[in-house]
Amino acid sequence: MGRSRDVVVESGRGTREPPRPAGAPGGTATDPAVDRAAAAGPGAAAATAPAGAAAAAGTVPGPAGPAAPAGTAAEVLGGYLQERAAEFLRGLRDHAQGTGAGAGGAGGGSGGTAGAADRARAAASVGALRSAARRMNGVLVTYRALLDPVWADNLRTELSWLAGVVAREYSCADRLERLSAALHRLASGAAGRGEGTDPAAAEAGGRTPGAAGGGRRSAGGGAATRERGALPVGAARAGALLERQLTLARTRAHSAALQALGSARFHAVADAVALLASETPFRPGGDADRPVAVVLAPPAEQARRRLDEAVAALPLSRAGAPYNADGLSRSLGTEARQDAAWDHVRVLLRVYRYAQEVLGPHAVPDPRLRPAGEALERHHEAAAAAAAAASAAATPRIAPATAYALGVLHADQRHEVEAARFTFGRHWTRTHPEGAPS
Amino acid sequence: MGRSRDVVVESGRGTREPPRPAGAPGGTATDPAVDRAAAAGPGAAAATAPAGAAAAAGTVPGPAGPAAPAGTAAEVLGGYLQERAAEFLRGLRDHAQGTGAGAGGAGGGSGGTAGAADRARAAASVGALRSAARRMNGVLVTYRALLDPVWADNLRTELSWLAGVVAREYSCADRLERLSAALHRLASGAAGRGEGTDPAAAEAGGRTPGAAGGGRRSAGGGAATRERGALPVGAARAGALLERQLTLARTRAHSAALQALGSARFHAVADAVALLASETPFRPGGDADRPVAVVLAPPAEQARRRLDEAVAALPLSRAGAPYNADGLSRSLGTEARQDAAWDHVRVLLRVYRYAQEVLGPHAVPDPRLRPAGEALERHHEAAAAAAAAASAAATPRIAPATAYALGVLHADQRHEVEAARFTFGRHWTRTHPEGAPS
Repeated sequence: MGRSRDVVVESGRGTREPPRPAGAPGGTATDPAVDRAAAAGPGAAAATAPAGAAAAAGTVPGPAGPAAPAGTAAEVLGGYLQERAAEFLRGLRDHAQGTGAGAGGAGGGSGGTAGAADRARAAASVGALRSAARRMNGVLVTYRALLDPVWADNLRTELSWLAGVVAREYSCADRLERLSAALHRLASGAAGRGEGTDPAAAEAGGRTPGAAGGGRRSAGGGAATRERGALPVGAARAGALLERQLTLARTRAHSAALQALGSARFHAVADAVALLASETPFRPGGDADRPVAVVLAPPAEQARRRLDEAVAALPLSRAGAPYNADGLSRSLGTEARQDAAWDHVRVLLRVYRYAQEVLGPHAVPDPRLRPAGEALERHHEAAAAAAAAASAAATPRIAPATAYALGVLHADQRHEVEAARFTFGRHWTRTHPEGAPS
Repeated sequence: MGRSRDVVVESGRGTREPPRPAGAPGGTATDPAVDRAAAAGPGAAAATAPAGAAAAAGTVPGPAGPAAPAGTAAEVLGGYLQERAAEFLRGLRDHAQGTGAGAGGAGGGSGGTAGAADRARAAASVGALRSAARRMNGVLVTYRALLDPVWADNLRTELSWLAGVVAREYSCADRLERLSAALHRLASGAAGRGEGTDPAAAEAGGRTPGAAGGGRRSAGGGAATRERGALPVGAARAGALLERQLTLARTRAHSAALQALGSARFHAVADAVALLASETPFRPGGDADRPVAVVLAPPAEQARRRLDEAVAALPLSRAGAPYNADGLSRSLGTEARQDAAWDHVRVLLRVYRYAQEVLGPHAVPDPRLRPAGEALERHHEAAAAAAAAASAAATPRIAPATAYALGVLHADQRHEVEAARFTFGRHWTRTHPEGAPS
């Protein structure tokens, strides 16, 4: 609820003033900016506000790709943020259109082929929205010293909230997809490899160089999975239970997203991002006018140091020994699991990667970042899926066969966690760049 | 029930004739040789017959270590078999004494510290007995062409039967130990590493070179495991269920072993091995008088070829990619698992290793055999433990939490299976000897 009335009002008026006056008092204002949102009505606002904002933003992003590297920090950082803001608004507009078109079937897991296409489009737009929000978020952290701090902190909070609220529905769907595919693989041994059921084909699949990199279950294969034969009773019941629970969670998340998209808070975020798409509020009297290498490189370097420190705290040498059994360790216990340190690295790695993106050609290239980051995303998803299986197993009065299948499924996903740690460690330690400072 | 009255009577008389007349008709005689065994009584026979046989055998094994390599095939092969026979009889005698001494507490899982020491001694004697029986068995297979074939086939059958009957009790105990340790590790995360609970120590453990070889859970750590704190309810119940079931199986196996040790069939085996301890029945008119390199090397080479062919049929390249998810594949399905091919290799590898032992200095050394064989033993034990967890989960009316813990445990052991395959593949493909023929 910490959004800025000033920003809303300004962008609502459509006049884009220099950002300095908007930032300073904005973060402290706590009154809900309901005036314009209430006048427009929740439904209409969701569809019109982002579209208008995006149209305004469409004129801003100059040349595609990284901004001219020779410019000032303000040009480079501002250009990056403006592009991301435009992407965010585009995603928001696409999503609002998708939600409007598929409103009838979007509530639960129902819907025909047209509904599925709508859902896929909506998922893609949410993906674009999240990607842009994450990047803005990370950059607002790294380069906070150059930006209006109150504005930056406020926007970060709001971006996180919006991206989270909109994405939750899709992460429920992804989790269900992941767990169903795993159940089918556990029961029939065929899914998840993208191959036939004969061992020779499976072996041939394992022979490809990519498979050696721990890229287990890389293809989604979700649609193919659904067509496979009947599961044994325990696995089938576990699948049905998970589907019930995750579909319920998804429906709730969908309602929450719809509600959020009609809220005043949403309009404030959309307006703030629309403002950002044309103008970046730099800190008054900051260094933003100086050259990129002088101003933008040190914060990125600091992000790298934070990342390195967090990685150094990980038990990497242990994770590098395959089948170290750490993934399942304590999974029948009651205490919290040791995933937090890995998740912390996941976030820091993302922040550093986005800082590198801003620097563009000025950045020291680090080929580890992308594969290591993907491994940590897989770590995160598998851990969440394992937790979903564990929580489903805590449902009262389920059959023992169901609970047994959920136990196997839980362990399987925890081994995915372990495999992801292994992959991360491989990428991180093997291909350390020569030129990187210690 | 296919033992030889001739052998029994001869060895009972204590006169060791050349083996030729005993072998030929021996395998075909089907009458039970109950006369002497019935006269001695089951209990006394179990204690006296092996002791007497071992005493007779004690005079036979000449110099320790491999027999003189320069001798004939008969000397080398006969010497090897005689040493193994003496070991077998010694193990049998020790076991009979141990069973007699600890008869009160040997039935179930009860017994104090004295009972535990007795059990440990009895387990050691059974281990020696099994090891000798396996070696005789393997050598009888590999060098069958040099031996009296009917005698060899008959003795193999009987050795397998006896070793299996006596060892089953201890493998039940080992399996329970393994599963309890795994449950404690899964619930508390500390057991199985032989380290404290702090992650730093665990990581330090992972840093040792041995741990990188996939030597997960190498130390038994069973005694330490038992002293750890209380498990969560599901794990505790699963542990109690497994303990009930495996203790019942162990008690049954113990009774069966006692019964077997009092049977006429047992006396026939003991007598046949006692005969072997002094004299090897070679095939009449065979090559046994020719030099070792000419006669014994080709069968060993053939054993190696059989092993290589079986290994070539394994999906080794897939198993060599860590976290390939094959171990758990189909584990919720109903069809049989794909462990048979690996188990086949385990047996063939053992047979080849024993053939190499016979050859001694004449053998081409293959440093892969021992670590690869150990990995396959671990494969076998983990697969059996996973099956025990799965079968416990099929118990009617268990609580869902119990079934859930058993599912996690099952998956954990299947991942041990996968880890063992990985370790085997590493050993097999990395350190291939230079001089080995393709």
